Amino acid sequence: MATPPISRYPVPKLEDLPEDIRARILAVQEKAGFVPNVFVTLAHRPAEFRAFFAYHDALMERDSGLTKAEREMVVVATSGANDCHYCIVAHGAILRIHARNPFVADQVAANYRKADITPRQKAMLAFAIKVSLQSSELVDEDYAAVRAHGFSEEDIWDIGAIAAFFALSNRMANLIGMRPNDEFFVLGRVPRTK
Amino acid sequence: MATPPISRYPVPKLEDLPEDIRARILAVQEKAGFVPNVFVTLAHRPAEFRAFFAYHDALMERDSGLTKAEREMVVVATSGANDCHYCIVAHGAILRIHARNPFVADQVAANYRKADITPRQKAMLAFAIKVSLQSSELVDEDYAAVRAHGFSEEDIWDIGAIAAFFALSNRMANLIGMRPNDEFFVLGRVPRTK
Amino acid sequence: MATPPISRYPVPKLEDLPEDIRARILAVQEKAGFVPNVFVTLAHRPAEFRAFFAYHDALMERDSGLTKAEREMVVVATSGANDCHYCIVAHGAILRIHARNPFVADQVAANYRKADITPRQKAMLAFAIKVSLQSSELVDEDYAAVRAHGFSEEDIWDIGAIAAFFALSNRMANLIGMRPNDEFFVLGRVPRTK
Amino acid sequence: MATPPISRYPVPKLEDLPEDIRARILAVQEKAGFVPNVFVTLAHRPAEFRAFFAYHDALMERDSGLTKAEREMVVVATSGANDCHYCIVAHGAILRIHARNPFVADQVAANYRKADITPRQKAMLAFAIKVSLQSSELVDEDYAAVRAHGFSEEDIWDIGAIAAFFALSNRMANLIGMRPNDEFFVLGRVPRTK
Amino acid sequence: MATPPISRYPVPKLEDLPEDIRARILAVQEKAGFVPNVFVTLAHRPAEFRAFFAYHDALMERDSGLTKAEREMVVVATSGANDCHYCIVAHGAILRIHARNPFVADQVAANYRKADITPRQKAMLAFAIKVSLQSSELVDEDYAAVRAHGFSEEDIWDIGAIAAFFALSNRMANLIGMRPNDEFFVLGRVPRTK
Amino acid sequence: MATPPISRYPVPKLEDLPEDIRARILAVQEKAGFVPNVFVTLAHRPAEFRAFFAYHDALMERDSGLTKAEREMVVVATSGANDCHYCIVAHGAILRIHARNPFVADQVAANYRKADITPRQKAMLAFAIKVSLQSSELVDEDYAAVRAHGFSEEDIWDIGAIAAFFALSNRMANLIGMRPNDEFFVLGRVPRTK
Repeated sequence: MATPPISRYPVPKLEDLPEDIRARILAVQEKAGFVPNVFVTLAHRPAEFRAFFAYHDALMERDSGLTKAEREMVVVATSGANDCHYCIVAHGAILRIHARNPFVADQVAANYRKADITPRQKAMLAFAIKVSLQSSELVDEDYAAVRAHGFSEEDIWDIGAIAAFFALSNRMANLIGMRPNDEFFVLGRVPRTK
Repeated sequence: MATPPISRYPVPKLEDLPEDIRARILAVQEKAGFVPNVFVTLAHRPAEFRAFFAYHDALMERDSGLTKAEREMVVVATSGANDCHYCIVAHGAILRIHARNPFVADQVAANYRKADITPRQKAMLAFAIKVSLQSSELVDEDYAAVRAHGFSEEDIWDIGAIAAFFALSNRMANLIGMRPNDEFFVLGRVPRTK
Repeated sequence: MATPPISRYPVPKLEDLPEDIRARILAVQEKAGFVPNVFVTLAHRPAEFRAFFAYHDALMERDSGLTKAEREMVVVATSGANDCHYCIVAHGAILRIHARNPFVADQVAANYRKADITPRQKAMLAFAIKVSLQSSELVDEDYAAVRAHGFSEEDIWDIGAIAAFFALSNRMANLIGMRPNDEFFVLGRVPRTK
Repeated sequence: MATPPISRYPVPKLEDLPEDIRARILAVQEKAGFVPNVFVTLAHRPAEFRAFFAYHDALMERDSGLTKAEREMVVVATSGANDCHYCIVAHGAILRIHARNPFVADQVAANYRKADITPRQKAMLAFAIKVSLQSSELVDEDYAAVRAHGFSEEDIWDIGAIAAFFALSNRMANLIGMRPNDEFFVLGRVPRTK
Repeated sequence: MATPPISRYPVPKLEDLPEDIRARILAVQEKAGFVPNVFVTLAHRPAEFRAFFAYHDALMERDSGLTKAEREMVVVATSGANDCHYCIVAHGAILRIHARNPFVADQVAANYRKADITPRQKAMLAFAIKVSLQSSELVDEDYAAVRAHGFSEEDIWDIGAIAAFFALSNRMANLIGMRPNDEFFVLGRVPRTK
Repeated sequence: MATPPISRYPVPKLEDLPEDIRARILAVQEKAGFVPNVFVTLAHRPAEFRAFFAYHDALMERDSGLTKAEREMVVVATSGANDCHYCIVAHGAILRIHARNPFVADQVAANYRKADITPRQKAMLAFAIKVSLQSSELVDEDYAAVRAHGFSEEDIWDIGAIAAFFALSNRMANLIGMRPNDEFFVLGRVPRTK
């Protein structure tokens, strides 16, 4: 079979993109060694691209009571619950790298309850999954359950807001048929040599 | 009972907000006559506020094959499917105003299949609901079904992206317990006098 | 668009109806100022009409530990869970009037967990929703949970029986495509002037 | 184990009941040889009892394009979908008797798709199950599918209304923990006339 | 209607079967008085037949902290949850015989929560149903709940493994459209004469 | 964190196992270079072990119209639908090896609809998922849909029976908390060097 396209929509050429978007993409490429498809496929709509990555960075780059690995766990667990192939594979790779653990991403994508993570992290993911799948049923007990593991109010916002942002992201990836880069499948799978 | 708070989180005072956010809020207040709670509650996190409204405007203010009323139908139908009280009430009001129709918002929030809308609009909402609830199951037939009603590829992105953005918005509103302003409940209910 | 019909079935003329049914309808009209569509659409089958309203009155007019507003909360919450447009709109209006509260109906229809109601009323609605959606899973703990809020055994029958009756009513309204009267959309929305 | 009670609620003695209800119960006893528990358990609330059986009779005794066996199939299939033990057992017996078939009730209760019934009857039950479980999603195609098997508009009302009435009945049986009489388990299991 | 076939697949003649399978079938026939259809329909694939019944016997014939009736309760409850007509009817009969109780099979198939069984047996079935329907959500609390009723670790394996084996069995029966023998419908319905 | 155990149950030592089981395990070890945990964890119950692997081999080793890679696709897709971490990881590796494709396992585990597979393979997986999740709803149209892609009746049995067997396997893995070997996570990820 020929390799399928990376999006149902036209993918802009780098040279046709607005300067700020091109700069962002080149910076990513320099850091990662390749351009994740989420950048070039969403660049089809520059205004939405800018808002998407501004939102992403606001949540994923801010100072937080959650480690970067924990934030990626929220992404991978909720993307698994939403069956989003792009986000499971791409953020699975990022989680492996941040956690320096070659197994945790596949574990969390399949079933966080059986993953090699702490009880505190399982409570975090139970809250995240509830935000992702049944947010209207959130009640005081749910907040109390994560607070009991030492999460602050701002940490809870982080957990919920990351789950909410990737509810959007999963749906965009499924809408446009976003295809993960081949590179993501192997990144971070051999722990020591990184 | 005392009126409950409009958010589980601290609500910043207007004078404590960054200038750009305060300006945005004052502009809304001037236009609408009141400040919708989504503005002041999300302002608790300025960076996320900016991204949220940039994303909102990119989708809801752009030129589109969908009318403003149709875009609000997507919001109200998917918010109904997600049981998001804030979005049903606030965007229900906006839909009534844009559609100049006092009934359509309550109809679409309850069950778009029985609403007084066109078959084209029902096809649009069927696609939006699928993006909202089962995006991983989107297949070629779903795109063909909306194309058959004359929606362009860019229109389909609009439908899906609005559904995706309000998947985020519904979850944020539920996460922080956002309460709709009293004003929204009556806005647009008497059609002629607007 | 032309206004759609109020039923998929023929709607009898008042003068063609049996005397007792006509009398009931005229009495309602005198009290409410209009005839709710549920009366004329269900009159297509006189025997079922009589049983339907006899059942309705037996539950909604009897002496009960539940106020009339509380009984309407049960109707609106379960009708919301069943996506029944007619019942949400018509009984939403009745709830606003009985509760002298312009907001509570939209709140309860969307998500009773976040409504401005008492913990006792939330427990009542949790029980009602379980009867409506998962009655086979009712266990002793469910009865104990409402008893803990002071509901008597007869009150619990009332909660459950109203949920059961509107399980029927929602399905009939959806079956025949019953359309709510325009009047219901605005009734009780302005609290003081009643 | 001691035999559990037939209801969570007090069961009135025959002599304490209003005359019309006692007469109805005695008539049933004479015909069936025993008093089905639905009569004595619902008699706890006389006004609701009268409405319940008036509704039942209006649907199940009227002239209809559906045979009595077909109407009982609707009852058994939807009661199976709702996991209502009382209705499966009691109406299973009635179905066996009306259909003069010792197998069809257990088949329809488990899975009508594999039952020894006609394609027309399978279409009838598909419609009934949709009314029972997803009535808000009824669309024109559902009505067309049963019409294609020769059901009239009034027959469709019958199918839907029986499904709706037993939505109520199943919930009442589950609410009060109604226990089927021992007699029902064996009635009609040995086909006399075949 | 003509009696439908007992399988969508060819049913081998006894004389065409491998010796060991024929012997097994003849032994069953001698004991039961008839050959349950599961034997002749699965014999279409001898290697799978041998594995299937070896697995069945390993679980259902072994020494266990569960009585034979309790093991059949697990079969009937999970088969009811999976709407498997063959297994409900065939194992319902076996359960009636082992439990010397003509009612318990229909009770457990419809809703174990309301069946005439002990709290210990209800806990067993709650665990079995979770294995059958949501095994990925099993957590320590589920194991603790059955241990609290005195089930050993090996008993818990039995409960779960029987539920797992009949997850296979239900799917095979549905896949090939396996039809229960007429004999099963009446077996064990008259308690004393066994 | 210490590495969690590979089973909730005792794991027998190789030297304590019956000769035939030890031989089977040693043969696997020689071929694969390690012993997959499914062998040692299920060996806790020798009789069930023998039946399990006899069933597995009967389905996965037989001559079939499905390639070995296609049979593993059925395993991975249904294990993904059941959130079974062990089977996704272990059979994902086997699928990568048989398909000589480093991507297809993660694709099929997340969402077969978007995987790089043929339309025929997608039809096969749609049927397998239906057997896995809704086998009672299988109707003639489902069989016709796979036949239209050239699958024979025996192929359809293979698809359905593999889905049924892994319904058992997934539940056993979840029941005992079976942990995949570290080796599986990387096997087959670099396509050429195998």
